Amino acid sequence: MSDKPTPLSGFPELLPEHRAVERAVIASLSRTFELHGFANIETRAVEPLERLSKGGEVDKEIYVLRRLQAEDSAGDSGLALHFDLTVPFARYVLEHAGKLEFPFRRFQIQPAWRGERPQEGRYRQFTQADIDIVGRDTLGFHHDVEVVRVMAEALAALPLPGLSIQVNNRKLIQGFYRGLGIPDVTAAIRQIDKLDKQEPDAVVALLVSEARASEEQARRCVEMATLRTDDTAHLRAYVEGLGVEDDLLATGLDELAAVVDGCAGVAGERVRVEANLRIARGLDYYTGTVLEIFLDGYERLKSIGGGGRYDALASDGRTTYPGVGVSFGVSRTVVPLLADGALAAGRKVPSLVLVALADEESRPASDAVARALRARGIATEVAASPQRFGKQIRYAERRDIPYVWFPGADGGDHQVKDIRSGDQSAANPHRWTPAEETQK
Amino acid sequence: MSDKPTPLSGFPELLPEHRAVERAVIASLSRTFELHGFANIETRAVEPLERLSKGGEVDKEIYVLRRLQAEDSAGDSGLALHFDLTVPFARYVLEHAGKLEFPFRRFQIQPAWRGERPQEGRYRQFTQADIDIVGRDTLGFHHDVEVVRVMAEALAALPLPGLSIQVNNRKLIQGFYRGLGIPDVTAAIRQIDKLDKQEPDAVVALLVSEARASEEQARRCVEMATLRTDDTAHLRAYVEGLGVEDDLLATGLDELAAVVDGCAGVAGERVRVEANLRIARGLDYYTGTVLEIFLDGYERLKSIGGGGRYDALASDGRTTYPGVGVSFGVSRTVVPLLADGALAAGRKVPSLVLVALADEESRPASDAVARALRARGIATEVAASPQRFGKQIRYAERRDIPYVWFPGADGGDHQVKDIRSGDQSAANPHRWTPAEETQK
Repeated sequence: MSDKPTPLSGFPELLPEHRAVERAVIASLSRTFELHGFANIETRAVEPLERLSKGGEVDKEIYVLRRLQAEDSAGDSGLALHFDLTVPFARYVLEHAGKLEFPFRRFQIQPAWRGERPQEGRYRQFTQADIDIVGRDTLGFHHDVEVVRVMAEALAALPLPGLSIQVNNRKLIQGFYRGLGIPDVTAAIRQIDKLDKQEPDAVVALLVSEARASEEQARRCVEMATLRTDDTAHLRAYVEGLGVEDDLLATGLDELAAVVDGCAGVAGERVRVEANLRIARGLDYYTGTVLEIFLDGYERLKSIGGGGRYDALASDGRTTYPGVGVSFGVSRTVVPLLADGALAAGRKVPSLVLVALADEESRPASDAVARALRARGIATEVAASPQRFGKQIRYAERRDIPYVWFPGADGGDHQVKDIRSGDQSAANPHRWTPAEETQK
Repeated sequence: MSDKPTPLSGFPELLPEHRAVERAVIASLSRTFELHGFANIETRAVEPLERLSKGGEVDKEIYVLRRLQAEDSAGDSGLALHFDLTVPFARYVLEHAGKLEFPFRRFQIQPAWRGERPQEGRYRQFTQADIDIVGRDTLGFHHDVEVVRVMAEALAALPLPGLSIQVNNRKLIQGFYRGLGIPDVTAAIRQIDKLDKQEPDAVVALLVSEARASEEQARRCVEMATLRTDDTAHLRAYVEGLGVEDDLLATGLDELAAVVDGCAGVAGERVRVEANLRIARGLDYYTGTVLEIFLDGYERLKSIGGGGRYDALASDGRTTYPGVGVSFGVSRTVVPLLADGALAAGRKVPSLVLVALADEESRPASDAVARALRARGIATEVAASPQRFGKQIRYAERRDIPYVWFPGADGGDHQVKDIRSGDQSAANPHRWTPAEETQK
């Protein structure tokens, strides 16, 4: 290969020092999910196309696989890359239901692919971290509280700016619209979801034209959608003050208040869980809790995650599997924050120690030092070539390796130098330990 | 989705208790690689098709991406899924060379895709773990020893049966063939590589017909290829005893002996590094060390890994990047060994404790116990519903959760039960710690 490659738009790739940050994020998320009893699974990258295209809305963004030089003329494999982790998970649950224990808690951290036009935070390949709890036939409401709480804790453990998990409830919206007498509730939900991009007056007009609402009904829908609070007493007073009576509305309000109250204080100051009555999530399958996640100061990225309750995540005709889950956009968050320095780069290599090399003949002695350090869990590499020691120290500096080790010649003392402070002292490879702050 | 999905041939998926084993394997490999200073990178799943199809040999196995309902009639994106991690890594090195430090040590653990016919150990999607060291312009031979040693250590840390890393050297083969006077050395290497599948006499015939060797030359090539030993004194005596003089042969013999001697004893009894003069690896780009990895008792899987030295992993026309690396087939090894029980399944969930639930009203009390345990790193879940305690214990049993916690009612003592032994005792959620063998 003799040509210089150029980056592919929409397929971000990280340098080692940035990938180290992404890996630490993934490891931290995994740790929190496992602390809460979520098991990891990995699904294959492909699904039969007909399974992916059932939703309808994302058809244009699907990458279909074709075998190069396949025997049949079309070459289509009938397979396509998944565009999220929910469709493959629903299929996994159906396929393996007989071997899973329900309620089934799982987390999944994998790439997904969409052929859409790339922009900041929106990529053609992107890694997501999803948690879901799935029941067989039934799934208690308390799991809605649980998944939001777990994701709030997981995000609070990351080195991110503040963020908010903004929660709403489809029953509340549907009950309110029904109580108001809106003719086409589903169309209304689709329109209200546009309040993040359009002016209130424009959404009122859409509600009138698309959901056959009266101007008055439309104004009250938009009015309701303006509330955002983490005070559930205020939430109840506000919604009840709107003067619409409906059983579904009352249930949705109780559920929404339970999620917000159930998450109060679990994740510290930086991660806020609040009610936002504007959140609707246009897709049809949500049936109760809905939520989106926004990063403070990065509103331009839109939501960096979302989720909710679906009473029929999957069904094989006889059994229905209700689920509730939250998805966090790892690439969508990490890549832009690394790019603008809001996330600090990690070290370029995992090594804590570079063992210097006096000459090629003493490589076995330097190797032995490295072996002794590694045996105690200290990541170590040996200099590639016996350059002058000043050059070897610069070699370590360029890689962010904090210590350089000079093996003692002819049984003499070993020396170890902290190249950040310049301190150098005698050390024994079987006992020396790096200062705490450099260990991870 | 109301239909019951069927598995896709060649796309193995693991149940949670099996995925736990695969994850532990990946974590262990990563730990060893990092101890040796290898930095992790992840490349995108796709490459421009023309970059993947340069090699020529694997054209038929490539999955090309087409955007469903793209505007242009063909819809081809010009992109295809990578079929290994070497081609993307070579491209990554070229693309980011200005921002990398050389020699650059990296490890990469990702899936790759091939459209080939599935069979045991050969999948259409499979995860590989690769380590490589890449230099700019030059790369010392000692790195050949290093990568083999690191992979030997990494494999020795896995719960696998015994295995052998079988090493040879292209210079030794080429030098021997040249010294013998074989007209087409490259063709001869391709034929000798077939000794794993064909009888010696058939390979002799192929060497005569394809590499224009004489019958006598062909027999000596096959004779050389029969040696397999970890005794480098024997190796030297055997090769020198074949009576062929050639500088390249002498260099190759020195290098091969250095790799085998350099790995002696580093990885214990279970991982053997030995010379096998039959190993050739048909692909053209190897220029020195070549190796394949075989699992004892699983010869039917063929090699579970391989690698070697390539003096031009990548080149941008001005600069050449030599490399040496080893690839280990994670899926190829883990999936068959899990299937036949040679690798024991892990636990179905990460939880060590199930907190029982007396009634729905006491969920906050059970949640508080779970929070206290998690705060000390103990993975915990709360029972999904307040069934009879006998049912809750069976719920834990079915998930392989070893402990069930009974919160004390009205300030009374908490009790924790080890459901494997049946032992039950009073415990404080802020101090209790599970027995050591259940912690990981």
